[in-house]
Amino acid sequence: MKLKDLRDEVLHANLMLESEGLVRLTWGNVSGIDRDSGLFVIKPSGVPYSQLTAENLVIVDLEGEVVEGQLNPSSDTPTHRVLYNEFPEIGGITHTHSVYATMFSQAGVELPCQGTTHADHFYGSVPVVRELNPEEVEADYEGNTGTAIAECFRERGINPMEMPACFQKYHAPFTWGKNALDSVKNSVALEVCAQMGIGTWQLNSDVADLPQHILNKHYLRKHGPGAYYGQK
Amino acid sequence: MKLKDLRDEVLHANLMLESEGLVRLTWGNVSGIDRDSGLFVIKPSGVPYSQLTAENLVIVDLEGEVVEGQLNPSSDTPTHRVLYNEFPEIGGITHTHSVYATMFSQAGVELPCQGTTHADHFYGSVPVVRELNPEEVEADYEGNTGTAIAECFRERGINPMEMPACFQKYHAPFTWGKNALDSVKNSVALEVCAQMGIGTWQLNSDVADLPQHILNKHYLRKHGPGAYYGQK
Amino acid sequence: MKLKDLRDEVLHANLMLESEGLVRLTWGNVSGIDRDSGLFVIKPSGVPYSQLTAENLVIVDLEGEVVEGQLNPSSDTPTHRVLYNEFPEIGGITHTHSVYATMFSQAGVELPCQGTTHADHFYGSVPVVRELNPEEVEADYEGNTGTAIAECFRERGINPMEMPACFQKYHAPFTWGKNALDSVKNSVALEVCAQMGIGTWQLNSDVADLPQHILNKHYLRKHGPGAYYGQK
Amino acid sequence: MKLKDLRDEVLHANLMLESEGLVRLTWGNVSGIDRDSGLFVIKPSGVPYSQLTAENLVIVDLEGEVVEGQLNPSSDTPTHRVLYNEFPEIGGITHTHSVYATMFSQAGVELPCQGTTHADHFYGSVPVVRELNPEEVEADYEGNTGTAIAECFRERGINPMEMPACFQKYHAPFTWGKNALDSVKNSVALEVCAQMGIGTWQLNSDVADLPQHILNKHYLRKHGPGAYYGQK
Repeated sequence: MKLKDLRDEVLHANLMLESEGLVRLTWGNVSGIDRDSGLFVIKPSGVPYSQLTAENLVIVDLEGEVVEGQLNPSSDTPTHRVLYNEFPEIGGITHTHSVYATMFSQAGVELPCQGTTHADHFYGSVPVVRELNPEEVEADYEGNTGTAIAECFRERGINPMEMPACFQKYHAPFTWGKNALDSVKNSVALEVCAQMGIGTWQLNSDVADLPQHILNKHYLRKHGPGAYYGQK
Repeated sequence: MKLKDLRDEVLHANLMLESEGLVRLTWGNVSGIDRDSGLFVIKPSGVPYSQLTAENLVIVDLEGEVVEGQLNPSSDTPTHRVLYNEFPEIGGITHTHSVYATMFSQAGVELPCQGTTHADHFYGSVPVVRELNPEEVEADYEGNTGTAIAECFRERGINPMEMPACFQKYHAPFTWGKNALDSVKNSVALEVCAQMGIGTWQLNSDVADLPQHILNKHYLRKHGPGAYYGQK
Repeated sequence: MKLKDLRDEVLHANLMLESEGLVRLTWGNVSGIDRDSGLFVIKPSGVPYSQLTAENLVIVDLEGEVVEGQLNPSSDTPTHRVLYNEFPEIGGITHTHSVYATMFSQAGVELPCQGTTHADHFYGSVPVVRELNPEEVEADYEGNTGTAIAECFRERGINPMEMPACFQKYHAPFTWGKNALDSVKNSVALEVCAQMGIGTWQLNSDVADLPQHILNKHYLRKHGPGAYYGQK
Repeated sequence: MKLKDLRDEVLHANLMLESEGLVRLTWGNVSGIDRDSGLFVIKPSGVPYSQLTAENLVIVDLEGEVVEGQLNPSSDTPTHRVLYNEFPEIGGITHTHSVYATMFSQAGVELPCQGTTHADHFYGSVPVVRELNPEEVEADYEGNTGTAIAECFRERGINPMEMPACFQKYHAPFTWGKNALDSVKNSVALEVCAQMGIGTWQLNSDVADLPQHILNKHYLRKHGPGAYYGQK
């Protein structure tokens, strides 16, 4: 993929944050990576979405150095960098403070798979990643945020391509996907499933999880070699 | 009705899913049938609403064969097909994952008739249709979804024209109507009634149902031979 | 006021129902009256807001006869007529099924004055008006709805100009005001206060009402001879 | 800063109230001050946002006298005046009845710092300011509202630049900031945090506050000499 095309896709993905209602003010950022060159394109820090252009996005390498761009990259850039290094299959990352998903982060509550909307995107419960301790915050807050996410997935044996989302405790969600647009779609799905989850529990506080055979069916009709959703 | 007109109506009905806030991403589909020819027009699978045209909709027959169209029809096409066969009076079907109605599906909770908004569209409680067992999922997931809906209505003696909606357990709502647009309007009504239902119970957890004589009045002033709502 | 100007105002007021998010589909109507001629202008039944014009609104007299108009007037016209006869000071009426206010109607729960947003529009608790019995429904459902509202206000000694709103049990809100636009503004205020009320109780289930001296201050700075809000 | 530029900024800030969904009808106002001249620019009372222009905003001095303008200034002008006198570092003030923040005002419940969205804007719990007594309402309702806010912050030793928001009991939120736009952004942040707070408690009724070391990190990466969020 050419960097020019990647810039266009990452621009489009960042603009979707606003059109999909996932962000207020400048509270979110998307990046996308070109694995061949090891470079990723990311939103500049604190710039309103309406002022974004393909040209003012920032290009960063996997050591975290800015390769192209006049503006500071997102303050969350070290989190993106660590996740690209830890999860080599992912091609895009989205971070927002979307309202319902952030409630789960603040509450420190996992979102179990309650239905097929969830199963279409996330294979199992969306985990809560622990908050950082004072030393980790002091040393490298944003980088260690990525490290804590990777540690959580490794320790619990979760495949990041099957569970492209987490709630960071006291903070907000991170999602990823095979590219930048896919990571935003997973943010949309997470936000909607979080809203549905709160209402589902309000209606039925001891609801059961989606049975495993339906989870398998829904996840696999959209993902993997036997998928038949959508167009070829 | 000419297929050209049916294509236009089904296009319009699918676009309403987005303008009425019933869908995110590509999570919903509408179809409409021409009973004379036994052909129905349905949304192609996974195509964003903004890319739909009357021409790229797919025409399918009641055996489930694609008669016209370059794209794959909605993955839920077998559910639509079964419902058209089982409910010979219906002319359109809508499936969405609209937020509040899906909470009822996930919670497995029926929506009783709490007021006249509901009575204007649905004559009684909106039922929950059971989830499929592993064999039914394996054999024909989408087709058996339609079969389970029809079975529920038959066993409980519910007239599908008087109750044009159901919540499929763990999944999401299906609605239908005398044509495609009518089925979307029933989806709007179901979504609003579901939202109202949650708030009504929050205010008064043991609220009574709408008295039968008011249910009759509201349903019948909009439906049947004595209806006087709207224009002639 | 000329009927031409009244038509324009009632058109604008009906369009506000949709732009203010008070209605879905065709679930609401506004009327405005010219007290000199005893004629009121009202939305035609079942017509989408986007198809309304000043010309296709319907003019009705206080006996309920259509004086001008090709279309059927709103099915709720008899309720408007009765309220104009019972409450001679009002100049406009709005009926919607707005989501949060309808929750209070369905739950049969009064909305006490919890704060100044409420006090700016409604002087005290918004009452619940009883549902009709089978004989009242049979005889004249819509007319008797207006009669039940007037009876409630008379029996409880509520001044309709100080409390321009009610929740009809199992149904939905009615509001009124000095003219059509004012009645819509009261519908907006009622809907917002209803939403706030549910959240306020969620945060504090035994919250006290707004103290009387602040209710007086807020209501009177916007209403009556000493009002100083707004422009002269 | 020239008054012409201040007018433009205050106009833009008032228009944001509507575009950010913080107000309905005319329920909110923003002002901005030029500290050199001691003059502030404020919304005229009761004028719809769509009719605001830089020219019809009203200029008021710190004694509360209108210096320029044909229209009455906001009825809340004395509150703004007192806050500018009491909090000499602030440059802009916003008052709204935004839905979720007003729920906290009505309930009389403080909003603790539950997460980083809050920590990015507010250093600690958002306080509830007491309601006025009958004498204070009678003497100078709007002015004494400002006095009560300043008294609350002084008594509790809260720095208004670190906590640019409060909930006035039974009323609604006030926010401020280094200028008019900043005060609106704080209103957006308060509204979102209030909504998140209600949902967080619904998920976990005894959730802990954000640990102090993360509060410090988030607040200080956006504020103060070591801030590194955004562009230089």
